[in-house]
Amino acid sequence: MAMTAATASVAQLSRGSAALRVGTSASLALRRSRASHSTVFQSASPTLKVSILCGGTAARAFFAQPSRCLPCNSKSKSSSPLVSRETRHPLHSQYSFSRRPGAVVLITSPTTAEAIRNASTQSEKIVEKVARPATFRHLVGRGLAWIGGSIVFIGLGVIGFFVYDYNTYKEGAEHEDISVPTLALNPRRGGPKNLPLYEVQIDDTDCDERLRTKDKPKLVILGGGWGSVAMLKELNPDDYHVTVISPTNYFLFTPMLPSATVGTLELKSLVEPIRRIIKRVNGHFMRARAEDVDFSYKVVEVAQTDHKGKETRFYVPYDKLVIGVGSVTNPHGVKGLENCYFLKDIDDARKIRNKVVQNLEIACLPTTPDDERRRLLSFVVSGGGPTGVEFAAELYDMLNEDLSKHYPRLLRNEISVHLVQSRSHILNTYDETVSKYAEARFLRDQIDVLTNSRVNEVKTDRIVFTQKCEDGTLVTKELPMGLCLWSTGVSQPEFCHRLAQKLGDAQTNRHALETDTHLRLNGAPLGDVYAIGDCSTVQNNVADHIITFVRSLAWKHGKDPETLEIHFSDWRRVAADVKKKFPQAVAHLKRLDRLFAEFDKDHSGTLDFGELRELLKQIDSKLTSLPATAQRAHQQGQYLARKFNKMARAAPGMHANEVIDGDLDAAVYKAFEYHHLGSLAYIGNSAVFERGGYNVSGGLWAVYAWRSVYFAQSVSMRIRILLMMDWFKRGIFGRDLVSF
Amino acid sequence: MAMTAATASVAQLSRGSAALRVGTSASLALRRSRASHSTVFQSASPTLKVSILCGGTAARAFFAQPSRCLPCNSKSKSSSPLVSRETRHPLHSQYSFSRRPGAVVLITSPTTAEAIRNASTQSEKIVEKVARPATFRHLVGRGLAWIGGSIVFIGLGVIGFFVYDYNTYKEGAEHEDISVPTLALNPRRGGPKNLPLYEVQIDDTDCDERLRTKDKPKLVILGGGWGSVAMLKELNPDDYHVTVISPTNYFLFTPMLPSATVGTLELKSLVEPIRRIIKRVNGHFMRARAEDVDFSYKVVEVAQTDHKGKETRFYVPYDKLVIGVGSVTNPHGVKGLENCYFLKDIDDARKIRNKVVQNLEIACLPTTPDDERRRLLSFVVSGGGPTGVEFAAELYDMLNEDLSKHYPRLLRNEISVHLVQSRSHILNTYDETVSKYAEARFLRDQIDVLTNSRVNEVKTDRIVFTQKCEDGTLVTKELPMGLCLWSTGVSQPEFCHRLAQKLGDAQTNRHALETDTHLRLNGAPLGDVYAIGDCSTVQNNVADHIITFVRSLAWKHGKDPETLEIHFSDWRRVAADVKKKFPQAVAHLKRLDRLFAEFDKDHSGTLDFGELRELLKQIDSKLTSLPATAQRAHQQGQYLARKFNKMARAAPGMHANEVIDGDLDAAVYKAFEYHHLGSLAYIGNSAVFERGGYNVSGGLWAVYAWRSVYFAQSVSMRIRILLMMDWFKRGIFGRDLVSF
Repeated sequence: MAMTAATASVAQLSRGSAALRVGTSASLALRRSRASHSTVFQSASPTLKVSILCGGTAARAFFAQPSRCLPCNSKSKSSSPLVSRETRHPLHSQYSFSRRPGAVVLITSPTTAEAIRNASTQSEKIVEKVARPATFRHLVGRGLAWIGGSIVFIGLGVIGFFVYDYNTYKEGAEHEDISVPTLALNPRRGGPKNLPLYEVQIDDTDCDERLRTKDKPKLVILGGGWGSVAMLKELNPDDYHVTVISPTNYFLFTPMLPSATVGTLELKSLVEPIRRIIKRVNGHFMRARAEDVDFSYKVVEVAQTDHKGKETRFYVPYDKLVIGVGSVTNPHGVKGLENCYFLKDIDDARKIRNKVVQNLEIACLPTTPDDERRRLLSFVVSGGGPTGVEFAAELYDMLNEDLSKHYPRLLRNEISVHLVQSRSHILNTYDETVSKYAEARFLRDQIDVLTNSRVNEVKTDRIVFTQKCEDGTLVTKELPMGLCLWSTGVSQPEFCHRLAQKLGDAQTNRHALETDTHLRLNGAPLGDVYAIGDCSTVQNNVADHIITFVRSLAWKHGKDPETLEIHFSDWRRVAADVKKKFPQAVAHLKRLDRLFAEFDKDHSGTLDFGELRELLKQIDSKLTSLPATAQRAHQQGQYLARKFNKMARAAPGMHANEVIDGDLDAAVYKAFEYHHLGSLAYIGNSAVFERGGYNVSGGLWAVYAWRSVYFAQSVSMRIRILLMMDWFKRGIFGRDLVSF
Repeated sequence: MAMTAATASVAQLSRGSAALRVGTSASLALRRSRASHSTVFQSASPTLKVSILCGGTAARAFFAQPSRCLPCNSKSKSSSPLVSRETRHPLHSQYSFSRRPGAVVLITSPTTAEAIRNASTQSEKIVEKVARPATFRHLVGRGLAWIGGSIVFIGLGVIGFFVYDYNTYKEGAEHEDISVPTLALNPRRGGPKNLPLYEVQIDDTDCDERLRTKDKPKLVILGGGWGSVAMLKELNPDDYHVTVISPTNYFLFTPMLPSATVGTLELKSLVEPIRRIIKRVNGHFMRARAEDVDFSYKVVEVAQTDHKGKETRFYVPYDKLVIGVGSVTNPHGVKGLENCYFLKDIDDARKIRNKVVQNLEIACLPTTPDDERRRLLSFVVSGGGPTGVEFAAELYDMLNEDLSKHYPRLLRNEISVHLVQSRSHILNTYDETVSKYAEARFLRDQIDVLTNSRVNEVKTDRIVFTQKCEDGTLVTKELPMGLCLWSTGVSQPEFCHRLAQKLGDAQTNRHALETDTHLRLNGAPLGDVYAIGDCSTVQNNVADHIITFVRSLAWKHGKDPETLEIHFSDWRRVAADVKKKFPQAVAHLKRLDRLFAEFDKDHSGTLDFGELRELLKQIDSKLTSLPATAQRAHQQGQYLARKFNKMARAAPGMHANEVIDGDLDAAVYKAFEYHHLGSLAYIGNSAVFERGGYNVSGGLWAVYAWRSVYFAQSVSMRIRILLMMDWFKRGIFGRDLVSF
């Protein structure tokens, strides 16, 4: 009869089993099996299990009756071998059975048999009742297990870190003797000025990697900015003997510089030591200034200043030279710029930060008169470009979010931020809607935007500027200021200017070094010198190359290019050449037939030389010069690196075929083409994105997006982690207004 | 026969079950119950379970033969109902059974029966073989679940942070008008020099908290070092109108400063803005210099310098003044200290860091001659105290661990670190074994320790010092140096010197301001002015107070103290007074009877005045002055804060009883007692701890311990987290050798 109950309850359980989760039976089985210590019945949904440990007589007797195994059998014999037994087990075990499936019931007593019968009648609702809480309890259990797990794993992580950290400490000093090339320690003299010629470097023989590159073609890179770094990260190791020369020994993550001025980011988080980057290509680094280049001797004249300020000069020879020295702030011939702060270097950020805090502190002091306080707290930004706008925004954020926490409220009310912009809009390089958005935002934030205003002079305590009113009249105004940031465009460094003069007619642009579309410096021996980044501009004078374009045709027709008649098929070929040589022009060479028809004034079905020139001139006019952005420098750096990699691979064959000069660049790689990936700017707790016509602007979500873009662009994992830490810090503790 | 096998295998399993873990059966049961879809055998150690889903005939037929349930029954009938069936199940199920317990075998085929028989014979070794991997697999499962859990929870953490971070940005500007007390904006003039008297501060009415403290007693604290900060953290809010005056607006975590000089820690991680700390007590902060104090007018004369460098002075009135202005570097009258670097402020650390990197970079350049390179790379530390030693150690670590990674190896070989110490040992304030250990360590690390050497002059490129040889002769030597750190003890700031002169005879100590054991400045009106930290010293002149000690006795006996005979019982009371007034003396007043006997020269059983004075003099001689450490300053700050809290609570009652002056301090609180918690120092990847005789020194584990001590001592959670981040950074990326 015990069996009756059992099978019945099984029937019930299996009917209700839909409501039960499999895991349950498992966990129960687990709990049970710990406890099982004698002949037992174990019912765990969706199946009823019978556990046998020693095949005791009770069980045997029970199994001995086949008929009872029939599912729907319900007849009961009172003369069961079980009944003759006396109770040997506490009663609670019955209830445990009636409470949930999977409970254990000893079939060694009549009371138990009784219990099972009850259970069989109840089990229906049991199943319903049990299912949910079981699942819930189960989930809670899981959750706790996970929390526990996380804690354990984080703990393990920490321990792991310590173990790792432990091994980062180096015990004892290693002082084995090393060989340093004699030529490195006393270099021979040479070159036009007979200066020390640094052909071999002191660490050329330091390790095998260096030895490998020792005699490779010498690639000298001037400057450690976006272009150079992009190049270093793309260049194949061991192809060239790389030397970077720069007055700073770190790469600066410029786009985030404004954030560092107010402590949103730490200064250290924006710099990556160049030596760290250069390691990839086993390159060499010199912290020095490049003063001049001699293109015939193929040497760079470098100046070093020792601790006494004494300047020594020497030559660094090159096989390939890449100029990426960047740009300097454009003074626009304004008087008193010494009273301004700039934002090009990391130290500038530090100075600004200290100045801001210092002003705040002085403004707190009792003996500071009201007007003086107002002056100290009036921050002026001259220049409405991204840098200026972002600085103004960051400054405003800091004053708005952190100042009031720790400084007298009086200050908050006396503070004013002014943005002086010469154009009619801020962010004028962006789409108009973007600058509108920015202006609206600034208006709301009470950042005073002064458009159509040109700064005439910066005095120690105020700036003088001329504003053009709606009616076109010029009004000269004064603005007291406690700090003035000067960020109005860039101009050419002295070094570039010197080179440009040397190269004479080949260099006509007054603001940057001109290169061809292969980024080769115009006027310099072909394939020796390249220029990238802000210091350079790519020449897109399609029309000037008309001769080269039609020469082949002329030669085919055996005619003088000047008198050549160009048919549409010819024009097609010319257009192809143009596209190849000037990738930027592709966009403007879409409908060739239309262009042809348009410029075939006399409808002769052919273009004469003059008409073709007109056509190309028109294309020229459409080609704009590339923006002076990190983005462009980065792309140019990558481009050069890839080309150099190809060249290195092609070199052996060329030597074999005695191809030493000629247009190797064009032979191995396509011309440089700039792809605009869009521009973005941070505007006080909101950001604007722009890409070819489309533009997005929004609140904090945009800020996070803005951050993640730069996060992804970061030069190294190190910087990424530091940025994360800083953002975390700002979130938790806010910006710390200390100055030193 | 199937059963035979089964029961046999069960017998085996249960025998071998010791080797099995209970969990196994659970996990298997779980896996099985998912798969179970027909009448099956499920054997899971330590019990064999038989699962019945529909009580199929095969099962019934099987159960129908009681005899087969007998454990040791082995007879087999070939005419089993099973045999008549055809195979309906793939064979692998057999193997799965023979491979591990808990496998499922369908007893619906003769092949299966076969399998079970095989199994029964194998199960013994099965059990052994199986146990381990099962457990292992189980653990792996758990592990994966935990990893999953951790990831999920960390993910949730990150999301949580973003949600939080999102709310830390403040939108829009709040510009409600605020009332600023007129007296604050144009303070009335007064005081001895008729300067502006800053009675009301501009932020006194900013918020309710400030309003509450507005009219409370004015507590002015000079300096923002360990003492002041400890006080600020212990002081009850709202009891006093607190004003902190300090030339720097941050608290510097000095003990870790040496680590910041080489980039082990970031500068920012060692400073906590005072305004942040002060917030707790709704205090006010002035970044200015205290120039003088007028004790009768109860005003501090403060000097502020505006951006033009013009100095303005004003008065800050106080009810209680705490002087914690610290100390300045001791020049020891050596010539050319302008060529040295110091290590007292955060900016010093930055300068040193830049200088080190600059030297390294110049040393890399080709035109640097060998001797010049060696000079640039010779770092000299003058002073063998903790600061000097720790800087030398940190410097060595950096050069040893990070330099060789990124700089030419030549540098590593040319570098030398020298430590010039005037005494016979470095760390001479520590236990001798400690300094021995440090010296041994430095010897191993090739840090050149020059003991018994006194620097005479520091030239731009070398130091001149005199060394005393074993035979006592003095030899003058020169040492070329690229950087010299001057850390030879401290001396009194000009401000303290001025005060000391003012107070005349009350101040006899030339090196620090003398206070009584309640830290009250000697000579100043009782209970007005306190001095803590390095700038102060606690006077322990027990003997000078003999009159006060015996007065009460004398009065009782109606005698003149001078002629009084002191019995042992009297001496007991005197001793109690001494202990109370000079807690530091307790240690030397243990065996009163002995002392009594010892000094009772004439064995009269009594001490006369002279004898007592002798006794007290002897105690004096044993009392040493407190060390000039952060530890002491911290304890003094806490002590004062607690006392002030008590006073504030006692104040109402005192006013009621018109108790205005008198020895209130002694009335409300015990005298200051210094508890030495031990001293520690970092020595190149090892650290030394010392506490009252005991001292421990060890390798990296000690470094970790050393760090955790300071970690715990940090002034704020912010600093703790920053420290953690920095240590993490160093571990992962090493120190970054950039300079700006």
